[in-house]
Amino acid sequence: MTPTHWIGIDIGATKILGCVLDPTGTIVYQKTVLTPQADPRSIEDALFDMARSLLVESNDAKTVGIAVAGWIDRSRRTVLFSPLLPWSMEPLAHNLSARLGLTVILENDANAAAWGEHEFGAGQSFDDFFLVTIGSGIGAGIVTDGLLLRGAHGLAGELGHTVVDPNGPPCPCGRRGCVNILASGRALQQHFEELRGVGLSVSQASEAGEEDAVTGYSITAAARAGDPIALQAFAEVGESLGRGIADLVMCHDPAAVILGGGVAAAGELLRGPTEASLRRCLVAHESVVQTEVLVALLGPSAGALGVAHLASLQGGPYTT
Amino acid sequence: MTPTHWIGIDIGATKILGCVLDPTGTIVYQKTVLTPQADPRSIEDALFDMARSLLVESNDAKTVGIAVAGWIDRSRRTVLFSPLLPWSMEPLAHNLSARLGLTVILENDANAAAWGEHEFGAGQSFDDFFLVTIGSGIGAGIVTDGLLLRGAHGLAGELGHTVVDPNGPPCPCGRRGCVNILASGRALQQHFEELRGVGLSVSQASEAGEEDAVTGYSITAAARAGDPIALQAFAEVGESLGRGIADLVMCHDPAAVILGGGVAAAGELLRGPTEASLRRCLVAHESVVQTEVLVALLGPSAGALGVAHLASLQGGPYTT
Repeated sequence: MTPTHWIGIDIGATKILGCVLDPTGTIVYQKTVLTPQADPRSIEDALFDMARSLLVESNDAKTVGIAVAGWIDRSRRTVLFSPLLPWSMEPLAHNLSARLGLTVILENDANAAAWGEHEFGAGQSFDDFFLVTIGSGIGAGIVTDGLLLRGAHGLAGELGHTVVDPNGPPCPCGRRGCVNILASGRALQQHFEELRGVGLSVSQASEAGEEDAVTGYSITAAARAGDPIALQAFAEVGESLGRGIADLVMCHDPAAVILGGGVAAAGELLRGPTEASLRRCLVAHESVVQTEVLVALLGPSAGALGVAHLASLQGGPYTT
Repeated sequence: MTPTHWIGIDIGATKILGCVLDPTGTIVYQKTVLTPQADPRSIEDALFDMARSLLVESNDAKTVGIAVAGWIDRSRRTVLFSPLLPWSMEPLAHNLSARLGLTVILENDANAAAWGEHEFGAGQSFDDFFLVTIGSGIGAGIVTDGLLLRGAHGLAGELGHTVVDPNGPPCPCGRRGCVNILASGRALQQHFEELRGVGLSVSQASEAGEEDAVTGYSITAAARAGDPIALQAFAEVGESLGRGIADLVMCHDPAAVILGGGVAAAGELLRGPTEASLRRCLVAHESVVQTEVLVALLGPSAGALGVAHLASLQGGPYTT
């Protein structure tokens, strides 16, 4: 019998979001738990518990997709490395598949979100686009000719560690002035704090439980209320983001760039300055072709939706 | 009857190189003429004459591929724009096809060269790589999952206009510090001249008929002879080239990067500093995976070889 429901789980540094969807992309059940701040085994247990509780709501699902904030190998079974979770060469899909008795595939969270937007969101009209996720860090998922680009090892789309300003602040990756350092949610907060002199401190935000969400929401709310400092912080993030995106547009020539991730909930506050910066960089390119700049539609569920669909496809939307 | 020979022509700013090859990629006839420095019509006439003379050597060829130093639309029939040739929205394939009575397809020269290396050269072992062509300008052709990446409009691979240093010298594209400005054959000459104080002037080189070849050859010869200024010029070009390539590696995750174009005839003089710069940028990436850096094998015929093969494939090596 063909399954009528799919299961997708998105694991980030702070929370695990799971959903059951029907083949139209409608979420029929959704659940969120906090990510255990402990060892790999307790995180795996939390994912197992999440999958089990989703299966209670959809006992005909045959596949489980897991979107991970990390680098996933091309076979979609191993977490090669995660900057936020304590995994290195972790055979996560193998382990969970054995425990659940179901097919489990992994995908990078930005790739999964890009696929979600392609199937059910802002990317439905485009076979060549990329999604840039702007959260605590920056990721990207690239769809080309209607297929998800993975690269030779599964690591394609690391826009966050391309360089906008080689004289910029140092990045943990070893380079300076990466998009990640200049245009992420953390960068938004830093710009805001620097401009304000004193400000919303990281420790205050952390006490609220969700550091980046609180930061993003607070600054977005201030910008919506017309706070010039918050607007300037968005302008600076948009400037750097547009420049980073411009380089990827030159190499990839998409029909559209879609902005997603937590910070993109700010909508036009982020899209406007980003598009303006991008257009300033693309004068020659745009004398010939146009690239649309859109905001993602699926919100925080994009990764779970995308990876649920990816898991349902035999072999996935890849050429090989 | 299946054709046993293919025809490929590569048109650049200074010369037109045509070849007839057999399906093993062996060149059975080759011819070069100077590019007319006049109007679009006289260039088209030169291409027509070239195709006719190649057909005399291979009267069973049914397709003609033309690699163009410019932007080609996705249908492979129109030159959207060329920075070096007087074409804009030129229906070149249509015009030549009507005059020759054969199928004619166009392709960007770096894309064509990448495909040539994939089929017959240094890219034969790789389904995910990119070729960077370092000539008077910088181009790139991206092969992903064994297919040539074109992008939404056919313009993918414009690595030359990604930015290495936003405070660098201005580029005609409107940005500053593009790879093209810092790492091309022209940049090599400029670095050399600046370091030497006085030097090989553009006018002297131009008098010899092939500005970039003379420049490249002269500086390469000096570097081979141990000239510290020439070696430093290669070091500076390699440093910028490695940084630009690093950003594309982060986004594309290739198994290999292949250096081609006229300047790559310098071999290890260019490859060594470029690889060293790239490795410095890729510390985090390379903690997980390795990317090879190779020199192209096909020399100046890469584009003609590649486009001849592309033209022979019904629909081309694309997913759509």
